[in-house]
Amino acid sequence: MRIDIDRDRLVETMEEQAAIGGTEGGGLHRLTLSDADAEARDWFADCAAGMGLDLRVDAFGNMFARREGADPDAEPVLVGSHLDSQPYGGIFDGALGVVAAIEFVRTLDDYGIETERPVEVVNWTNEEGSRFPPAMQGSGVWAGAHDIEAEYEKTDADGARLVDELERIGYRGADPAEPREPYHAYLELHPEQGPFLEETGADVGIVTGIVGLRWAEVTFEGQANHSGTTPMHYRDDALVAAADVVTAIRRLPGSLGERTVATVGSLTVEPNSVNIVPETVRFTTDIRDPDEATLDRGVERMEAEVAAAADREGVDYEVEHTMRAASVDFPDRPVEAVAEAAADLGYDGRRMVSGAGHDATHAASVCETAMVFSVSEDGKSHTEDEFTSWADCYSSASVLANAALDLAGRVD
Amino acid sequence: MRIDIDRDRLVETMEEQAAIGGTEGGGLHRLTLSDADAEARDWFADCAAGMGLDLRVDAFGNMFARREGADPDAEPVLVGSHLDSQPYGGIFDGALGVVAAIEFVRTLDDYGIETERPVEVVNWTNEEGSRFPPAMQGSGVWAGAHDIEAEYEKTDADGARLVDELERIGYRGADPAEPREPYHAYLELHPEQGPFLEETGADVGIVTGIVGLRWAEVTFEGQANHSGTTPMHYRDDALVAAADVVTAIRRLPGSLGERTVATVGSLTVEPNSVNIVPETVRFTTDIRDPDEATLDRGVERMEAEVAAAADREGVDYEVEHTMRAASVDFPDRPVEAVAEAAADLGYDGRRMVSGAGHDATHAASVCETAMVFSVSEDGKSHTEDEFTSWADCYSSASVLANAALDLAGRVD
Repeated sequence: MRIDIDRDRLVETMEEQAAIGGTEGGGLHRLTLSDADAEARDWFADCAAGMGLDLRVDAFGNMFARREGADPDAEPVLVGSHLDSQPYGGIFDGALGVVAAIEFVRTLDDYGIETERPVEVVNWTNEEGSRFPPAMQGSGVWAGAHDIEAEYEKTDADGARLVDELERIGYRGADPAEPREPYHAYLELHPEQGPFLEETGADVGIVTGIVGLRWAEVTFEGQANHSGTTPMHYRDDALVAAADVVTAIRRLPGSLGERTVATVGSLTVEPNSVNIVPETVRFTTDIRDPDEATLDRGVERMEAEVAAAADREGVDYEVEHTMRAASVDFPDRPVEAVAEAAADLGYDGRRMVSGAGHDATHAASVCETAMVFSVSEDGKSHTEDEFTSWADCYSSASVLANAALDLAGRVD
Repeated sequence: MRIDIDRDRLVETMEEQAAIGGTEGGGLHRLTLSDADAEARDWFADCAAGMGLDLRVDAFGNMFARREGADPDAEPVLVGSHLDSQPYGGIFDGALGVVAAIEFVRTLDDYGIETERPVEVVNWTNEEGSRFPPAMQGSGVWAGAHDIEAEYEKTDADGARLVDELERIGYRGADPAEPREPYHAYLELHPEQGPFLEETGADVGIVTGIVGLRWAEVTFEGQANHSGTTPMHYRDDALVAAADVVTAIRRLPGSLGERTVATVGSLTVEPNSVNIVPETVRFTTDIRDPDEATLDRGVERMEAEVAAAADREGVDYEVEHTMRAASVDFPDRPVEAVAEAAADLGYDGRRMVSGAGHDATHAASVCETAMVFSVSEDGKSHTEDEFTSWADCYSSASVLANAALDLAGRVD
């Protein structure tokens, strides 16, 4: 019953895409809607043509390559990920999911398998969000989470408009950027981007959902003063207040939940001079947990810590809630398809919640969705050093292919 | 015996200089060696010419206007400060000391007083250090603390060389930038730049010395990781380690000395992204105290806190000691001249140690030096909001004039 993907071809296909926008450091510089992204898209279109698939490009550049099923009216199974990269990302993030979806269809052809449902391979536009905000933009537009006209107007650091770049590379398609029909399921393979699978010795991740997150930007406003002439009791030091909160945020997960993570990733100081007491400090907070109530409790505690720190230092504060993503629980059917495929293939599949957002976040609002995670060595991600061994690419792609076939239904 | 300076003329002279490089916010934008600085120097030269003084400009642009004494071979008394300003500084910082020195000489003329010793009014080049490092540069070159050729090569943010700018504005003088002869004393009036005088209700500050300082730059090197997928126990968060040190530095003075101040004024985070665990954090520490042993103990404790924080977070660290200035104790003779002038004039003069460096720091290595401080409202400094009332300008300038006359000796 199982299908076996061609391991050598999987590696070749991975290497083909890795050559497009490849960096000297062995990673990828393939920002969305760049020339390198255009070349990767052309390569995807060639792959689709080589398999005899129909290619649709929607008005936001999302690419869908369709293999018909025995019942052309059945709801299709969508499989894929993204080909864009971080400024200096690795060759696996996103690309592995697209390549595995291509290899899934090639394997169906190898075996001469007809599926009950149509299968579509998708390459989403701008998952990374590092050139144009936000991340997961193409799937978000497609799923109706964002207004396409607003997203068109987004500009990059050089002032280039997204829609102009989409036109320029020739990937503003004719299809509306929305689900053309109801979909049966969406499956996505992605590197874990964390150390959990490697630490637990598992082969693949059976992703049961995606954590919710709360982002905020906190500003402390104190008083700039000379560091030599201003006595300690006279100071309103915005950085001291911020340091209190950084420490509190570090402690927060320990009293919230087993899977809570909380981070201050960005912090800037003004005037930022060795001999001036800091006047203004802005920093971000990022709290994630699979449970919504835990998230809300985390935000409350963060705000209490901000207020307490401001009071101690005599500075003013402001908390702006910049992003809120609800946690996603994947439904049983596709999750069990992944779990069964892993078990059938003899792999140690570990159930886990994704700590990062993925295109699957948006797809989950359209159809039944699940994910497969591959092992990320040392948990490294968004760096040229990102690494998933060919063995782990093969095992996770095999799980994806068999789970997708299960969902698509095999015509015997 | 006392001389009384002309209060209205003092205000006029202050307003004359304040019009050169004046900002809409009522402050000064008169960076060293800028066109505005050149104009202020021309104005200083005009003042000197108006008083019939000989003007010397040395090779570093320091300006000396000399009024001969009865004994031309006697060691002169040097009085002055600086006319350059911070990018957006107030109209008092530096300028008040130069104006008060000019008004001292004018008052000698008003009274027809001949002094025993020559009197020189000095305008030092680049006290602020905000365009070219370091601060107190001109007096430092003059006193032999810096090599003039090295300082000539310093560049500003636009890449302009200091020596080229000095030539451009026509103030690279012919005289060697060094004391032409032994000096008897140096006196400088400067705004306090802190809240001590106002808080204690004093009229003027009798400055008995300048605190020593120790600057360091600390780097924590952790590991950048995804803020969603990296469990808390897996992180090497450079910002969390830095926050521990910021908090410790805030506590440091409380266990060191009554007059210790300690500051983290500058801190930068890399990659500085909301969803990436901070990899590299660089920050400065600034510890000041009048006592050298206390300073050394402060630096030791700072280093111990850095090591402990690095150990807790599992990050690497480096401490670079970027500046060390020994504390200065002013000798009795000029300090008592200031104290007696204040008492004679009926002012409440408070003895205090300066928390900021001044040109007097370097002058103290050449001759007997002391300072007078004027009240700084709310302790504000290095901002357009810096304020010293005309009443406080008058009282402090009167103390300066009478102390300087005492040191110069009056020929009856």
